[in-house]
Amino acid sequence: MAAKTLDTLFYDSLKDIYYAERAILKALPKMRRAAQSPDLQQAFSDHKSATEEHVDRLRQIFEIIGKRAQGKTCPAIDGILEEGEEVLAEYADAPALDAALIAAAQAVEHYEIARYGALRRWAEVLGHDDAAKLLDATLEEETETDGKLTALAEASANQQAVAAE
Amino acid sequence: MAAKTLDTLFYDSLKDIYYAERAILKALPKMRRAAQSPDLQQAFSDHKSATEEHVDRLRQIFEIIGKRAQGKTCPAIDGILEEGEEVLAEYADAPALDAALIAAAQAVEHYEIARYGALRRWAEVLGHDDAAKLLDATLEEETETDGKLTALAEASANQQAVAAE
Repeated sequence: MAAKTLDTLFYDSLKDIYYAERAILKALPKMRRAAQSPDLQQAFSDHKSATEEHVDRLRQIFEIIGKRAQGKTCPAIDGILEEGEEVLAEYADAPALDAALIAAAQAVEHYEIARYGALRRWAEVLGHDDAAKLLDATLEEETETDGKLTALAEASANQQAVAAE
Repeated sequence: MAAKTLDTLFYDSLKDIYYAERAILKALPKMRRAAQSPDLQQAFSDHKSATEEHVDRLRQIFEIIGKRAQGKTCPAIDGILEEGEEVLAEYADAPALDAALIAAAQAVEHYEIARYGALRRWAEVLGHDDAAKLLDATLEEETETDGKLTALAEASANQQAVAAE
Protein backbone atom coordinates (compact mmCIF):
# COMPACT_ATOMS: atom_id res chain seq x y z
CA MET A 1 0.00 0.00 0.00
CA ALA A 2 1.33 3.43 -0.94
CA ALA A 3 2.00 5.78 1.97
CA LYS A 4 -0.87 8.17 2.47
CA THR A 5 0.71 11.47 1.64
CA LEU A 6 -0.77 14.90 1.07
CA ASP A 7 -1.62 13.88 -2.52
CA THR A 8 -3.87 11.13 -1.21
CA LEU A 9 -5.40 13.43 1.39
CA PHE A 10 -6.08 16.05 -1.26
CA TYR A 11 -7.84 13.56 -3.51
CA ASP A 12 -9.80 11.98 -0.62
CA SER A 13 -10.96 15.42 0.50
CA LEU A 14 -11.96 16.41 -3.02
CA LYS A 15 -14.18 13.31 -3.10
CA ASP A 16 -15.61 14.28 0.29
CA ILE A 17 -16.56 17.82 -0.75
CA TYR A 18 -17.79 16.62 -4.16
CA TYR A 19 -20.26 14.36 -2.34
CA ALA A 20 -21.12 17.19 0.06
CA GLU A 21 -21.78 19.79 -2.66
CA ARG A 22 -24.13 17.42 -4.46
CA ALA A 23 -25.97 16.63 -1.22
CA ILE A 24 -26.33 20.38 -0.62
CA LEU A 25 -27.68 20.83 -4.16
CA LYS A 26 -30.46 18.37 -3.31
CA ALA A 27 -31.24 20.05 0.03
CA LEU A 28 -31.42 23.66 -1.19
CA PRO A 29 -34.77 23.54 -3.03
CA LYS A 30 -36.40 22.15 0.12
CA MET A 31 -34.94 24.98 2.19
CA ARG A 32 -36.08 27.54 -0.37
CA ARG A 33 -39.64 26.18 -0.35
CA ALA A 34 -39.70 26.28 3.45
CA ALA A 35 -38.36 29.84 3.79
CA GLN A 36 -40.94 32.48 4.69
CA SER A 37 -39.29 35.71 3.58
CA PRO A 38 -38.83 36.35 -0.16
CA ASP A 39 -35.28 37.56 0.53
CA LEU A 40 -34.36 34.24 2.12
CA GLN A 41 -36.04 32.31 -0.70
CA GLN A 42 -33.94 34.33 -3.15
CA ALA A 43 -30.77 33.68 -1.14
CA PHE A 44 -31.38 29.92 -1.36
CA SER A 45 -32.05 30.16 -5.13
CA ASP A 46 -28.85 32.14 -5.65
CA HIS A 47 -26.92 29.68 -3.56
CA LYS A 48 -28.20 26.80 -5.66
CA SER A 49 -26.73 28.41 -8.80
CA ALA A 50 -23.46 29.04 -6.98
CA THR A 51 -23.36 25.43 -5.77
CA GLU A 52 -23.79 24.17 -9.36
CA GLU A 53 -20.77 26.27 -10.29
CA HIS A 54 -18.82 24.83 -7.32
CA VAL A 55 -19.56 21.28 -8.47
CA ASP A 56 -18.36 22.23 -11.93
CA ARG A 57 -15.12 23.66 -10.51
CA LEU A 58 -14.54 20.44 -8.57
CA ARG A 59 -14.87 18.48 -11.83
CA GLN A 60 -12.23 20.76 -13.36
CA ILE A 61 -9.92 20.08 -10.40
CA PHE A 62 -10.34 16.31 -10.75
CA GLU A 63 -9.28 16.80 -14.36
CA ILE A 64 -6.29 18.93 -13.38
CA ILE A 65 -4.98 16.19 -11.09
CA GLY A 66 -5.85 13.53 -13.64
CA LYS A 67 -8.25 11.60 -11.43
CA ARG A 68 -11.80 10.45 -11.88
CA ALA A 69 -14.49 12.75 -10.43
CA GLN A 70 -16.20 10.71 -7.75
CA GLY A 71 -17.88 11.29 -4.43
CA LYS A 72 -17.13 9.63 -1.10
CA THR A 73 -19.83 9.43 1.54
CA CYS A 74 -19.30 12.31 3.92
CA PRO A 75 -20.87 11.64 7.34
CA ALA A 76 -20.25 15.27 8.33
CA ILE A 77 -22.48 16.83 5.67
CA ASP A 78 -25.02 14.03 6.12
CA GLY A 79 -25.23 14.92 9.82
CA ILE A 80 -25.39 18.66 9.19
CA LEU A 81 -28.18 18.24 6.61
CA GLU A 82 -30.02 15.76 8.82
CA GLU A 83 -29.98 18.34 11.60
CA GLY A 84 -31.27 20.92 9.13
CA GLU A 85 -34.16 18.60 8.19
CA GLU A 86 -35.00 18.11 11.87
CA VAL A 87 -35.11 21.86 12.44
CA LEU A 88 -37.24 22.31 9.34
CA ALA A 89 -39.75 19.76 10.65
CA GLU A 90 -39.73 21.12 14.20
CA TYR A 91 -40.10 24.77 13.16
CA ALA A 92 -42.49 24.33 10.23
CA ASP A 93 -44.73 27.44 10.17
CA ALA A 94 -43.21 28.69 13.42
CA PRO A 95 -42.33 32.37 13.85
CA ALA A 96 -38.66 31.41 14.25
CA LEU A 97 -38.52 29.25 11.12
CA ASP A 98 -36.45 31.63 9.00
CA ALA A 99 -34.00 32.26 11.84
CA ALA A 100 -33.64 28.48 12.24
CA LEU A 101 -33.21 27.95 8.48
CA ILE A 102 -30.53 30.63 8.28
CA ALA A 103 -28.62 29.02 11.16
CA ALA A 104 -28.88 25.60 9.49
CA ALA A 105 -27.58 27.08 6.23
CA GLN A 106 -24.69 28.74 8.05
CA ALA A 107 -23.67 25.39 9.55
CA VAL A 108 -23.47 24.09 5.96
CA GLU A 109 -21.46 27.14 4.83
CA HIS A 110 -18.99 26.77 7.65
CA TYR A 111 -18.42 23.11 6.86
CA GLU A 112 -17.60 24.13 3.31
CA ILE A 113 -15.37 27.00 4.46
CA ALA A 114 -13.37 24.56 6.62
CA ARG A 115 -13.01 22.03 3.78
CA TYR A 116 -12.19 24.52 1.01
CA GLY A 117 -9.70 26.27 3.31
CA ALA A 118 -7.79 23.01 3.79
CA LEU A 119 -8.07 22.05 0.12
CA ARG A 120 -6.75 25.40 -1.09
CA ARG A 121 -3.83 25.14 1.37
CA TRP A 122 -2.97 21.64 0.14
CA ALA A 123 -3.31 22.59 -3.53
CA GLU A 124 -0.76 25.37 -2.95
CA VAL A 125 1.66 23.08 -1.12
CA LEU A 126 1.32 20.46 -3.85
CA GLY A 127 1.94 23.04 -6.58
CA HIS A 128 -1.51 22.66 -8.16
CA ASP A 129 -1.75 26.39 -8.81
CA ASP A 130 -4.75 26.28 -11.13
CA ALA A 131 -6.66 24.09 -8.70
CA ALA A 132 -5.73 26.46 -5.86
CA LYS A 133 -7.24 29.37 -7.83
CA LEU A 134 -10.51 27.50 -8.41
CA LEU A 135 -10.68 26.46 -4.75
CA ASP A 136 -9.97 30.01 -3.67
CA ALA A 137 -12.82 31.34 -5.83
CA THR A 138 -15.26 28.90 -4.23
CA LEU A 139 -13.95 29.64 -0.74
CA GLU A 140 -14.52 33.37 -1.31
CA GLU A 141 -18.08 32.70 -2.46
CA GLU A 142 -18.89 30.46 0.50
CA THR A 143 -17.56 33.12 2.86
CA GLU A 144 -19.65 35.77 1.09
CA THR A 145 -22.77 33.60 1.34
CA ASP A 146 -22.18 33.19 5.06
CA GLY A 147 -21.94 36.98 5.39
CA LYS A 148 -25.14 37.48 3.39
CA LEU A 149 -26.99 35.02 5.61
CA THR A 150 -25.82 36.91 8.71
CA ALA A 151 -27.04 40.17 7.17
CA LEU A 152 -30.41 38.60 6.34
CA ALA A 153 -30.71 37.26 9.88
CA GLU A 154 -29.91 40.63 11.38
CA ALA A 155 -32.17 42.55 9.05
CA SER A 156 -35.31 40.53 9.30
CA ALA A 157 -35.64 36.99 10.51
CA ASN A 158 -34.65 37.64 14.10
CA GLN A 159 -36.84 40.68 14.38
CA GLN A 160 -39.81 38.83 12.93
CA ALA A 161 -39.29 36.00 15.36
CA VAL A 162 -39.37 38.40 18.27
CA ALA A 163 -42.27 40.46 16.94
CA ALA A 164 -44.33 37.29 16.77
CA GLU A 165 -43.89 36.50 20.46
CA MET B 1 -48.46 23.89 21.87
CA ALA B 2 -46.70 27.22 22.27
CA ALA B 3 -45.50 28.89 19.08
CA LYS B 4 -41.83 28.22 18.45
CA THR B 5 -40.33 31.65 18.77
CA LEU B 6 -36.74 32.81 18.98
CA ASP B 7 -36.76 31.96 22.70
CA THR B 8 -37.43 28.32 21.89
CA LEU B 9 -34.85 28.32 19.11
CA PHE B 10 -32.26 29.83 21.44
CA TYR B 11 -32.89 27.17 24.10
CA ASP B 12 -32.94 24.32 21.54
CA SER B 13 -29.67 25.51 20.06
CA LEU B 14 -28.06 25.83 23.48
CA LYS B 15 -28.94 22.17 24.09
CA ASP B 16 -27.47 21.27 20.69
CA ILE B 17 -24.13 22.97 21.32
CA TYR B 18 -24.03 21.69 24.93
CA TYR B 19 -24.22 18.14 23.55
CA ALA B 20 -21.66 19.02 20.87
CA GLU B 21 -19.12 20.53 23.28
CA ARG B 22 -19.26 17.45 25.48
CA ALA B 23 -18.85 15.15 22.48
CA ILE B 24 -15.82 17.21 21.43
CA LEU B 25 -14.39 16.93 24.97
CA LYS B 26 -14.48 13.15 24.60
CA ALA B 27 -12.88 13.21 21.13
CA LEU B 28 -9.98 15.56 21.87
CA PRO B 29 -7.77 13.18 23.91
CA LYS B 30 -7.94 10.67 21.08
CA MET B 31 -6.89 13.32 18.58
CA ARG B 32 -4.07 14.43 20.87
CA ARG B 33 -2.76 10.88 21.21
CA ALA B 34 -2.86 10.40 17.44
CA ALA B 35 -1.07 13.66 16.58
CA GLN B 36 2.54 13.30 15.50
CA SER B 37 3.98 16.77 16.10
CA PRO B 38 4.39 17.98 19.68
CA ASP B 39 2.93 21.36 18.65
CA LEU B 40 -0.27 19.74 17.45
CA GLN B 41 -0.47 17.57 20.58
CA GLN B 42 -0.16 20.77 22.63
CA ALA B 43 -2.84 22.49 20.54
CA PHE B 44 -5.28 19.65 21.27
CA SER B 45 -4.43 19.76 25.00
CA ASP B 46 -5.00 23.51 25.08
CA HIS B 47 -8.24 23.14 23.21
CA LYS B 48 -9.47 20.58 25.73
CA SER B 49 -9.02 23.11 28.55
CA ALA B 50 -10.78 25.76 26.49
CA THR B 51 -13.65 23.37 25.74
CA GLU B 52 -14.12 22.68 29.46
CA GLU B 53 -14.45 26.42 29.96
CA HIS B 54 -16.98 26.61 27.09
CA VAL B 55 -19.11 23.91 28.71
CA ASP B 56 -18.97 25.86 31.96
CA ARG B 57 -20.09 29.04 30.18
CA LEU B 58 -23.01 27.18 28.63
CA ARG B 59 -24.09 26.08 32.13
CA GLN B 60 -24.00 29.72 33.19
CA ILE B 61 -26.19 30.66 30.23
CA PHE B 62 -28.75 27.97 31.06
CA GLU B 63 -28.87 29.55 34.54
CA ILE B 64 -29.26 33.05 33.12
CA ILE B 65 -32.32 32.00 31.13
CA GLY B 66 -33.65 29.94 34.03
CA LYS B 67 -33.63 26.60 32.23
CA ARG B 68 -32.15 23.23 33.03
CA ALA B 69 -28.76 22.49 31.44
CA GLN B 70 -29.33 19.55 29.14
CA GLY B 71 -27.99 18.24 25.88
CA LYS B 72 -29.90 17.32 22.75
CA THR B 73 -28.45 14.81 20.30
CA CYS B 74 -26.77 16.77 17.55
CA PRO B 75 -26.44 14.74 14.33
CA ALA B 76 -24.15 17.41 12.86
CA ILE B 77 -21.37 17.06 15.42
CA ASP B 78 -21.86 13.28 15.48
CA GLY B 79 -21.27 13.23 11.72
CA ILE B 80 -18.30 15.59 11.88
CA LEU B 81 -16.64 13.54 14.64
CA GLU B 82 -17.44 10.28 12.87
CA GLU B 83 -15.67 11.62 9.80
CA GLY B 84 -12.74 12.61 12.01
CA GLU B 85 -12.55 9.06 13.38
CA GLU B 86 -12.58 7.65 9.86
CA VAL B 87 -9.72 9.90 8.83
CA LEU B 88 -7.81 8.98 11.96
CA ALA B 89 -8.17 5.29 11.14
CA GLU B 90 -7.37 5.72 7.44
CA TYR B 91 -4.32 7.92 8.03
CA ALA B 92 -2.91 6.20 11.13
CA ASP B 93 0.90 6.51 10.95
CA ALA B 94 0.68 8.05 7.48
CA PRO B 95 2.83 11.03 6.53
CA ALA B 96 -0.30 13.14 6.03
CA LEU B 97 -1.85 12.25 9.41
CA ASP B 98 -1.26 15.62 11.08
CA ALA B 99 -2.56 17.50 8.04
CA ALA B 100 -5.67 15.29 8.11
CA LEU B 101 -6.13 15.77 11.88
CA ILE B 102 -5.86 19.54 11.57
CA ALA B 103 -8.47 19.58 8.82
CA ALA B 104 -10.79 17.40 10.92
CA ALA B 105 -10.33 19.73 13.89
CA GLN B 106 -11.06 22.75 11.71
CA ALA B 107 -14.35 21.19 10.59
CA VAL B 108 -15.25 20.96 14.29
CA GLU B 109 -14.19 24.58 14.92
CA HIS B 110 -16.25 25.85 12.00
CA TYR B 111 -19.33 24.03 13.22
CA GLU B 112 -18.90 25.75 16.58
CA ILE B 113 -18.25 29.13 14.95
CA ALA B 114 -21.52 28.80 13.01
CA ARG B 115 -23.50 27.80 16.11
CA TYR B 116 -22.01 30.37 18.50
CA GLY B 117 -22.45 33.09 15.86
CA ALA B 118 -26.18 32.38 15.68
CA LEU B 119 -26.52 32.00 19.46
CA ARG B 120 -24.79 35.32 20.15
CA ARG B 121 -27.02 37.05 17.58
CA TRP B 122 -30.15 35.60 19.18
CA ALA B 123 -29.00 36.41 22.73
CA GLU B 124 -28.60 40.05 21.66
CA VAL B 125 -32.02 40.18 20.01
CA LEU B 126 -33.62 38.58 23.06
CA GLY B 127 -31.92 41.04 25.42
CA HIS B 128 -29.86 38.37 27.21
CA ASP B 129 -26.86 40.69 27.40
CA ASP B 130 -24.84 38.64 29.89
CA ALA B 131 -25.39 35.49 27.85
CA ALA B 132 -24.35 37.36 24.69
CA LYS B 133 -21.06 38.33 26.36
CA LEU B 134 -20.31 34.73 27.34
CA LEU B 135 -21.19 33.49 23.86
CA ASP B 136 -19.03 36.16 22.32
CA ALA B 137 -16.05 35.14 24.46
CA THR B 138 -16.39 31.52 23.31
CA LEU B 139 -16.88 32.56 19.69
CA GLU B 140 -13.67 34.59 19.82
CA GLU B 141 -11.78 31.62 21.25
CA GLU B 142 -13.11 29.19 18.64
CA THR B 143 -12.10 31.61 15.89
CA GLU B 144 -8.63 31.95 17.45
CA THR B 145 -8.26 28.17 17.64
CA ASP B 146 -9.16 27.88 13.97
CA GLY B 147 -6.47 30.46 13.15
CA LYS B 148 -3.89 28.62 15.26
CA LEU B 149 -4.68 25.37 13.46
CA THR B 150 -4.19 27.07 10.10
CA ALA B 151 -0.84 28.45 11.27
CA LEU B 152 0.22 24.98 12.49
CA ALA B 153 -0.79 23.45 9.17
CA GLU B 154 1.13 26.04 7.20
CA ALA B 155 4.20 25.87 9.41
CA SER B 156 4.72 22.16 9.61
CA ALA B 157 2.17 19.47 8.89
CA ASN B 158 1.81 20.19 5.19
CA GLN B 159 5.55 20.45 4.64
CA GLN B 160 6.12 17.18 6.48
CA ALA B 161 3.51 15.46 4.40
CA VAL B 162 5.21 16.59 1.23
CA ALA B 163 8.73 15.90 2.48
CA ALA B 164 7.70 12.33 3.17
CA GLU B 165 6.58 11.73 -0.40
